[in-house]
Amino acid sequence: MTAAHTAATVIDLNCDLGEGFGAWTLGDDEALLAVVTSANIACGFHAGDPGIMRRLCRTAAASGIAIGAHVGYRDLVGFGRRRIEIAPQDLVNDIVYQIAALDGFARLAGDRVSYVKPHGALYNTIAAEPEYARALAEAVRLYDPDLHVLGLAGSPGLHEVAATGLATVAEAFADRAYTAEGRLVPRTQQGSVVHDVDLIAERCTRLARTGEVESIDGTTVRISAQTICVHGDTPGAVAIARRVRAALLAEGVTLAPFVSGDRQ
Amino acid sequence: MTAAHTAATVIDLNCDLGEGFGAWTLGDDEALLAVVTSANIACGFHAGDPGIMRRLCRTAAASGIAIGAHVGYRDLVGFGRRRIEIAPQDLVNDIVYQIAALDGFARLAGDRVSYVKPHGALYNTIAAEPEYARALAEAVRLYDPDLHVLGLAGSPGLHEVAATGLATVAEAFADRAYTAEGRLVPRTQQGSVVHDVDLIAERCTRLARTGEVESIDGTTVRISAQTICVHGDTPGAVAIARRVRAALLAEGVTLAPFVSGDRQ
Amino acid sequence: MTAAHTAATVIDLNCDLGEGFGAWTLGDDEALLAVVTSANIACGFHAGDPGIMRRLCRTAAASGIAIGAHVGYRDLVGFGRRRIEIAPQDLVNDIVYQIAALDGFARLAGDRVSYVKPHGALYNTIAAEPEYARALAEAVRLYDPDLHVLGLAGSPGLHEVAATGLATVAEAFADRAYTAEGRLVPRTQQGSVVHDVDLIAERCTRLARTGEVESIDGTTVRISAQTICVHGDTPGAVAIARRVRAALLAEGVTLAPFVSGDRQ
Amino acid sequence: MTAAHTAATVIDLNCDLGEGFGAWTLGDDEALLAVVTSANIACGFHAGDPGIMRRLCRTAAASGIAIGAHVGYRDLVGFGRRRIEIAPQDLVNDIVYQIAALDGFARLAGDRVSYVKPHGALYNTIAAEPEYARALAEAVRLYDPDLHVLGLAGSPGLHEVAATGLATVAEAFADRAYTAEGRLVPRTQQGSVVHDVDLIAERCTRLARTGEVESIDGTTVRISAQTICVHGDTPGAVAIARRVRAALLAEGVTLAPFVSGDRQ
Repeated sequence: MTAAHTAATVIDLNCDLGEGFGAWTLGDDEALLAVVTSANIACGFHAGDPGIMRRLCRTAAASGIAIGAHVGYRDLVGFGRRRIEIAPQDLVNDIVYQIAALDGFARLAGDRVSYVKPHGALYNTIAAEPEYARALAEAVRLYDPDLHVLGLAGSPGLHEVAATGLATVAEAFADRAYTAEGRLVPRTQQGSVVHDVDLIAERCTRLARTGEVESIDGTTVRISAQTICVHGDTPGAVAIARRVRAALLAEGVTLAPFVSGDRQ
Repeated sequence: MTAAHTAATVIDLNCDLGEGFGAWTLGDDEALLAVVTSANIACGFHAGDPGIMRRLCRTAAASGIAIGAHVGYRDLVGFGRRRIEIAPQDLVNDIVYQIAALDGFARLAGDRVSYVKPHGALYNTIAAEPEYARALAEAVRLYDPDLHVLGLAGSPGLHEVAATGLATVAEAFADRAYTAEGRLVPRTQQGSVVHDVDLIAERCTRLARTGEVESIDGTTVRISAQTICVHGDTPGAVAIARRVRAALLAEGVTLAPFVSGDRQ
Repeated sequence: MTAAHTAATVIDLNCDLGEGFGAWTLGDDEALLAVVTSANIACGFHAGDPGIMRRLCRTAAASGIAIGAHVGYRDLVGFGRRRIEIAPQDLVNDIVYQIAALDGFARLAGDRVSYVKPHGALYNTIAAEPEYARALAEAVRLYDPDLHVLGLAGSPGLHEVAATGLATVAEAFADRAYTAEGRLVPRTQQGSVVHDVDLIAERCTRLARTGEVESIDGTTVRISAQTICVHGDTPGAVAIARRVRAALLAEGVTLAPFVSGDRQ
Repeated sequence: MTAAHTAATVIDLNCDLGEGFGAWTLGDDEALLAVVTSANIACGFHAGDPGIMRRLCRTAAASGIAIGAHVGYRDLVGFGRRRIEIAPQDLVNDIVYQIAALDGFARLAGDRVSYVKPHGALYNTIAAEPEYARALAEAVRLYDPDLHVLGLAGSPGLHEVAATGLATVAEAFADRAYTAEGRLVPRTQQGSVVHDVDLIAERCTRLARTGEVESIDGTTVRISAQTICVHGDTPGAVAIARRVRAALLAEGVTLAPFVSGDRQ
């Protein structure tokens, strides 16, 4: 623990959850719910089914974990990882549908959806293309303008959403390398993913406490993030997530949802 | 107009709407929205997509038409007309999902879902089997116990739902024949469907004003119904629906949703 | 009939068919099967279901109409009209699946799939992008290298497919305007679609007999096409298709599938 | 190895494979392909996607494992485990579609589909209800009357299929208890599933060598089966399957597909 530490250092941990479908499971939802403070729950378009959504909302609500609508392209076989050239207005409607469906289960659990995070290919599209960022913003504004929008720290899309007046939340990735400009190193490039668990934990604590990470070039780069995304479906995902949580707590960082209080 | 007529005679007209999907259309939604007082809107499981749901909710809300969640089995290719042996608890979740999704679009239109009507094979299952009627009731109670449940007049399922304390609404069918016991004549039996437009209109006005219809045996049978279902996807559907509406109005019957007031 | 006419003038007429799904219909398959010589039959990914596929294969086979696999993106709600960023190798597999499924019904009818035509957004992708054209070619070569590939006349994609050694068939569109360079005028541009039935028929006969059309600029442009596509789902589609067929026959053009003989 | 052993004792081992979908996996296909002699491969309706189908057909063909079409209800979220009240004629078409699609990938691998086995709820429906057994038989006869039909030993459905003239293959279950009448003990009943690996292996070898198993009542019952089904998705599935295979081989039983030779 360094001198720079203050009690005020707070960060949120988010993870994609509820990504099974029917008989299929993906990731260890129960284990990860014990780690994160915000749960991005799939809403049935790229993954997730009503039974999973209900169960996760119940556990999240009971644990004080914020419920986020993890909205995606309607593409089960592609798991929402393939860009679809959807008309922006259709995307608005698809997003409203997904938020509303999940919000139903959140209400059953005495809670509400607190934020919206796009999934997979839609995440990348919205981060990069203002037209789609505006579609997301329109959907959120129409459904509930108090919802936060979670997106890539420093991305044009998140700025676009913020410009519409919605509350935005910037996220960093626990296991991803950054360029000297603060962008994610593309997955096609070597070194784009950090695999060493200790290094991941160390980077996360540094980020939480100082807002800095070491870039792939060795320079120091500032990433302004209110939440760190831990993955749920990679090998060793649970172990990494637990390690990150433990390291943050050990360094005196407070873990808490970026949204707080009872929304019901 | 007979002496028996009183100004207090009120009935609701409901119709299944929003049964297209993507590029496919079914029925003439716009024309039928000018006829009915309650709109059973498909929620995406057997038909309906987010764009259709939004558009219909907007028109219904603007016209004072009550919005009902027309919930069905998840079976697009079967249009919800095939019974699926779903676990009752899974059905609860599927119904909550559908109601919540539609309610999202109703809220966008400044309105709310007012009632729930099961569609197709699920309608028949719930009418006949208490276990599934209780599943529907549980879903409604969980999501919003103020929602009404629309079902077959005189059916065991509707009694079961009523026994749980929910408000139920009994419906009669404009173009269906009834047995002397007040049951629907099965579709497999000759004479089960009335095709003569004038006769349909006459039967509806009699039903609305006296609660009676002539059974297929020629006897008089009482059907206690607060709403009459006009079909939207049969040949001549719009013409029949318009004729029924005109006849009811001509006979001094007031057409109004069974639920009233602004639910927002 | 001009002096240029010879008995040898032969053209194929193709149309997208079988585009319903379950309870939904689109276009008048029966009427169009009486017009065309090649039927592009949807295979269940963007439209089409096993019942429709079987029925159309039976009628096509009985009428000497060539059966083509109209393969598309797996996107029912988007009707295959939205580009999906699918990995080329996944596209190969998706195309094989669709061809094979349709071929099953063709065999039931004592016939075989004769050709493959991509649908909607996949048509445009393959016309323009060599990587995807090669994926289509690979799928066809793997499944049956004797199948023809139908695509946009003069497109890079069709050239790419031809370069792999497969037989290609170039198509022109009955109701579309062409640029002076022989490209389709984009739909976003005014005048891109010809609506006058007589003009459509006249353009088709000229094209069939001389290989020429008048471009949107008024110049004469050569379109080397062995088949003309008539639309099945636009207003007046059947009337236009019939008119084109009648005009071609009246001008002494022989209508015949570009593939011939019994493939069984 | 006992005196009763003869070189002629041959049995087939089959397993449900290819039950993933997109990003989701289920069971360890690679491990199980090293155990079985016949692979029931999902065809995309209840599980399975084109990429999985192609990969499994390739491995099966290369290993001399017979390829079977594991046909199911169109119900991804229910994994084909829920009965759907489908019209028999629609079932015929759905089955043809699935067989044909898989056969496409079998052909790519230089092989052919050799048999058809219904999956999940469809398995039970066909075993018990002659109308649906005939629908399956009709689909197989239409597509390829040389295909074998795999079903529950002693079931009315399998008899019905055999009565149509198709070759049938009776299966026993490695880990299921049998009644004194040779029926499966219902899963709802205690003792319906055998969990002891040694006992499972012993029962399988006895069945293969003598055609007998000990019923749940302790009596000896004859089960005439040409194939034994090992499960792929239960806990310890691979270990059980390997143990059964090893025990059969140790007892001198020959493992071979019930269909033999190159069908190409």
